[in-house]
Amino acid sequence: MAGKRVAVIGASGYGGLQTLRLLQGHPAFSVTFLGGERSSGKRWSELVPFLPLEGDPVVRRPDAGEIAAAADLAVLSLPNGLAAGLVPPLLERGVKVVDLSADYRYRSLAQWQEVYAAEARQVPRSDQDLCAEAVYGLVEWEEEAIRSARLVAAPGCFPTASLLALVPFLKQGLIETRGIVIDAKTGTSGGGRAAKEHLLLAEAAEAVAPYGVVGHRHTSEIEQLAGRVAGQPIQLQFTPHLMPMVRGLLATVYARLRDPGLTADDCTTLLRAAYRDRPSVEVLPVGTYPSTKWVRQTNRCLLSVQVDKRTGQLIVMSAIDNLVKGQAGQGVQCLNLMAGLEAGTGLPLLPFYP
Amino acid sequence: MAGKRVAVIGASGYGGLQTLRLLQGHPAFSVTFLGGERSSGKRWSELVPFLPLEGDPVVRRPDAGEIAAAADLAVLSLPNGLAAGLVPPLLERGVKVVDLSADYRYRSLAQWQEVYAAEARQVPRSDQDLCAEAVYGLVEWEEEAIRSARLVAAPGCFPTASLLALVPFLKQGLIETRGIVIDAKTGTSGGGRAAKEHLLLAEAAEAVAPYGVVGHRHTSEIEQLAGRVAGQPIQLQFTPHLMPMVRGLLATVYARLRDPGLTADDCTTLLRAAYRDRPSVEVLPVGTYPSTKWVRQTNRCLLSVQVDKRTGQLIVMSAIDNLVKGQAGQGVQCLNLMAGLEAGTGLPLLPFYP
Amino acid sequence: MAGKRVAVIGASGYGGLQTLRLLQGHPAFSVTFLGGERSSGKRWSELVPFLPLEGDPVVRRPDAGEIAAAADLAVLSLPNGLAAGLVPPLLERGVKVVDLSADYRYRSLAQWQEVYAAEARQVPRSDQDLCAEAVYGLVEWEEEAIRSARLVAAPGCFPTASLLALVPFLKQGLIETRGIVIDAKTGTSGGGRAAKEHLLLAEAAEAVAPYGVVGHRHTSEIEQLAGRVAGQPIQLQFTPHLMPMVRGLLATVYARLRDPGLTADDCTTLLRAAYRDRPSVEVLPVGTYPSTKWVRQTNRCLLSVQVDKRTGQLIVMSAIDNLVKGQAGQGVQCLNLMAGLEAGTGLPLLPFYP
Amino acid sequence: MAGKRVAVIGASGYGGLQTLRLLQGHPAFSVTFLGGERSSGKRWSELVPFLPLEGDPVVRRPDAGEIAAAADLAVLSLPNGLAAGLVPPLLERGVKVVDLSADYRYRSLAQWQEVYAAEARQVPRSDQDLCAEAVYGLVEWEEEAIRSARLVAAPGCFPTASLLALVPFLKQGLIETRGIVIDAKTGTSGGGRAAKEHLLLAEAAEAVAPYGVVGHRHTSEIEQLAGRVAGQPIQLQFTPHLMPMVRGLLATVYARLRDPGLTADDCTTLLRAAYRDRPSVEVLPVGTYPSTKWVRQTNRCLLSVQVDKRTGQLIVMSAIDNLVKGQAGQGVQCLNLMAGLEAGTGLPLLPFYP
Repeated sequence: MAGKRVAVIGASGYGGLQTLRLLQGHPAFSVTFLGGERSSGKRWSELVPFLPLEGDPVVRRPDAGEIAAAADLAVLSLPNGLAAGLVPPLLERGVKVVDLSADYRYRSLAQWQEVYAAEARQVPRSDQDLCAEAVYGLVEWEEEAIRSARLVAAPGCFPTASLLALVPFLKQGLIETRGIVIDAKTGTSGGGRAAKEHLLLAEAAEAVAPYGVVGHRHTSEIEQLAGRVAGQPIQLQFTPHLMPMVRGLLATVYARLRDPGLTADDCTTLLRAAYRDRPSVEVLPVGTYPSTKWVRQTNRCLLSVQVDKRTGQLIVMSAIDNLVKGQAGQGVQCLNLMAGLEAGTGLPLLPFYP
Repeated sequence: MAGKRVAVIGASGYGGLQTLRLLQGHPAFSVTFLGGERSSGKRWSELVPFLPLEGDPVVRRPDAGEIAAAADLAVLSLPNGLAAGLVPPLLERGVKVVDLSADYRYRSLAQWQEVYAAEARQVPRSDQDLCAEAVYGLVEWEEEAIRSARLVAAPGCFPTASLLALVPFLKQGLIETRGIVIDAKTGTSGGGRAAKEHLLLAEAAEAVAPYGVVGHRHTSEIEQLAGRVAGQPIQLQFTPHLMPMVRGLLATVYARLRDPGLTADDCTTLLRAAYRDRPSVEVLPVGTYPSTKWVRQTNRCLLSVQVDKRTGQLIVMSAIDNLVKGQAGQGVQCLNLMAGLEAGTGLPLLPFYP
Repeated sequence: MAGKRVAVIGASGYGGLQTLRLLQGHPAFSVTFLGGERSSGKRWSELVPFLPLEGDPVVRRPDAGEIAAAADLAVLSLPNGLAAGLVPPLLERGVKVVDLSADYRYRSLAQWQEVYAAEARQVPRSDQDLCAEAVYGLVEWEEEAIRSARLVAAPGCFPTASLLALVPFLKQGLIETRGIVIDAKTGTSGGGRAAKEHLLLAEAAEAVAPYGVVGHRHTSEIEQLAGRVAGQPIQLQFTPHLMPMVRGLLATVYARLRDPGLTADDCTTLLRAAYRDRPSVEVLPVGTYPSTKWVRQTNRCLLSVQVDKRTGQLIVMSAIDNLVKGQAGQGVQCLNLMAGLEAGTGLPLLPFYP
Repeated sequence: MAGKRVAVIGASGYGGLQTLRLLQGHPAFSVTFLGGERSSGKRWSELVPFLPLEGDPVVRRPDAGEIAAAADLAVLSLPNGLAAGLVPPLLERGVKVVDLSADYRYRSLAQWQEVYAAEARQVPRSDQDLCAEAVYGLVEWEEEAIRSARLVAAPGCFPTASLLALVPFLKQGLIETRGIVIDAKTGTSGGGRAAKEHLLLAEAAEAVAPYGVVGHRHTSEIEQLAGRVAGQPIQLQFTPHLMPMVRGLLATVYARLRDPGLTADDCTTLLRAAYRDRPSVEVLPVGTYPSTKWVRQTNRCLLSVQVDKRTGQLIVMSAIDNLVKGQAGQGVQCLNLMAGLEAGTGLPLLPFYP
């Protein structure tokens, strides 16, 4: 199984950079194609002097034929709407794809077109079959499907943290499906590397603010899997907030327990059972709450549970690194599974602290 | 009304520093006594070279007699439990007091002793009468009482932001009193100036984490006034989070609307009416969400409302500077009222951006 | 002298925003014209919801005739090269101008064209007479000239901090004019509000790096005044570094003392004498070193001196807020002088700490 | 060479934590003893929930006999003065030691006692022989000596960055030995994990300031090796500055070239030759300047050179991670060499960006 060849498309954005970094030193993959639009034709070392790659390759325009000639697997880290143009020809040529964008996260193309209306207006799509075929790459819950997939849609960062917290409780029917609140906090790297005024250090430092209140796109992505797991449609409240930090994502999830007798210890036991053989998810002892700093630059999700007996509320806290478990690291987990490896192969689980 | 004399006790902590800064250039107050325990005997300029005070006074041990000889009003910025030793003799000597600690925030001494059990063990208290007499200094809702008070307990930072968001809706009976969730985010200056490992820059930077989940002391403080306003006991979920920034506090408040037909515009109109003559509170247009940076170093609270028609949830966002409207600035508002001035006298409302 | 009318051109960039904030509450100025290119036609509150202006004015295209009809004085905060198009018609119409750009900082147009070659290629200029007429607005050293000027070029942020440190020593001939090293550190707001990748929080946080090493444009600006004061041409080493913070600028200046017997106390005495009647400059005691945080959002420059007897080196540390004393605040000082007021009128000298 | 056993003493401070993290997954070392004073008797997972260690060991009081029974090599990360009590009994028992403190960095005990006078007063020492025997662990220049050493004193963070920049030029006699200026910038983690007011996020954020101006302890440490290499005593100017970030250290080094004809390209060639077989040091192309972010959490030093023809100055910029190449990583390099391995074994060279 040694030496699978991987193409990384969108190499100099954060998703691409992170994927490349994670693949350095990976025991079974080598990067054999670097693709990008704006940066095509440039030597890697000019673009990214701080992450030397062997042979200092030139970034190339992402042509499906050339990618297929060079690689067995491809990771696409492109703006929403663009992967849909590249995925069909890659699959035809036998290249397996992990897509980090939202293009294949919905089983229904129509839903994608509704949620990503602006992109849909720019990009005519008719690949409903691929939407239905694509596997949602939440590794801890879809491992078997990912192993045999040609096309995996890596989940968004907010859905990853939120669903890892919610799914075990929904699956067991332990919480009410109405009234769920997810209050999420993310670092600014989630907004990508393209320059935007509100992500300047001068604007975002010393600033905490909500955005996308009611109707943020990730709401429907969370609801899709949550509803499937619960066996009924779910409508929940999801509110993201921008934090003055580079990386890290914390979801604080509030739900009402069906059985008011359940304790935090009970819930912790349940979570530990659910993630027993999933080294990427760790459940903290009751009373220890996760910090985003504890998962920085790791592929780990830290969960912790608290129960308020007075109010009957369950509170699940879920911390990830938005660029690793929330994006590129989960993408590499999927690559690993698609190549017949253990999901965690080559991925870091321990932070450099502080 | 010119020239009321003010004592600031606990002068070199953040509450004291901020009070002193706000009183510089105040048209009607002059600081005539600087008190502190650890720093007593030292010249101000040695302690705080960056905030020169006229005459470079010496910090003195806070003796009630000396304070009363020097000042008409006193602001106490001391660790919880310590104000209770100083307030009775100050009131006896005719000094009006604004206390920034939690000592007089509960009408019931027994409740204080339960919530602040550790402090209560150190400090025997029997001043139930003063607990009952003290006015809770949430200026926008208690203005008349503050005007005639001898003793005002300035609210905590979290209760200030939370209650300014909740009170108008509770008063009008527009939201369900069960199931309220307050997800709050604060800068590290809320933890004070005394050195603590978890507040080091190396620990707190690039870190977002919850703390005090279920049972944080401010929960009961919020519930006390919320219940009084609603006319019934309220139990709510309050979860604070530590943010990697110096100042600023955002409370994101979730509650279920009783009338599902109410829109965000309706709720904005309601809030604007409630705070019409309250320049410290500004209600943003629907769709504009407050950033803590917009209130930095001001005495303003920015509110914004959103409604999710799908879920029936009301979301109120409330941003303040935890050291100004959340502490020293509200304290100065109280001083102003107790001295017969407009609440906002001498207080900044506009930020220096960025 | 009440009620001079001021136009602010380039209102929604950092220089403009800061100027507007400083003019709020100014006792003698009112802002009567807001000008901007990209934002023209928009209501102020849409652009800047966090800094409400009375009457919520509309931003207008900066036409010299309209400006002259509305204002007595104008502050221009435009990209380099653009002020040169607006200044001549404003002066013709009797409007006095403070220009925050580099367009009039050199006495010689040819030098400007050499140093700002890229801008010069875009903007043909022939206003050598105005270059010669313009006063360099380093308030503490040019006060008399500014008072009677029609056109003032506010100094750059690095030159302000560097020259306030150097001029007294050069004037007295106490340091060697060869071998001066200025190692400067600035917050990212110095790069302006337009979005640039390297100023993103994700890029600039947790990052310290030099830029413009050898040949940064401010080198020649510093050398121009330094040479004039020293009575001989000076070539010095100036190296700026980008800091992970919003505001603040520290210049650490190294120079060799001519007289090896001079002590830090001697040098402190000299500096204090030089700035005796200049409240914007404060000289700290020997052994107390300035932090940029101590001058945040103030118009103050803090200086401190140290001498190394072993090496014969003088070290002068100079801290300012790059957007206030380094830009808009110094601009308002100039406005004040041009309007016959004290230089510091309406300007804050004390920080809000922390 | 598999399976050398390593003791880490001072395990929960930053030096210890970082050493432990670097040793996780190291191919040839296993940690077999965790020592600490304050934390002795506690389970590791209680102290450090975010860095799980196999078997969740208990921290033990650092007794030389117990350490020698458990380990072949020891890394000491203790406050200055304390290693000197533990090193002699460890060496006697055959344990090789890498000491991260300053205790053995000077060849002369008398000099240590002068520079670290406060510590010397607390800790009587008479181990001049060990001071003379200890090898200064600047790996790229002392590799052979380290290989055969019993006791290595890992250099300080500032000396590491400064000397890697200076030594090649001093060795070749290319720069004047008088007038060298090192202006250094460090993150707050350099101040350790013990709580100190000035290192609080609320104090250190948005703050840049010099400290230890003239006479900082690292001056003499830099001068010791610089003088040895130059073949004559050297007195230089070293000024550290505290930066608002967690990790990273940049030294900007100014020196006068002896031969004014040397270009930046010449100097880059020289540096590249000096570090040809040293993968921990990389020399950037002329015009590319190092950011501390580019070496974050790596054991790499990035160097870049610029020359100002006008002034004859050489400027060398040197960036490291103060906790890795500046402390624990360099310590592990020494461990590797003492165990007969390549210096870089198991150490990361590529950053996770951003």
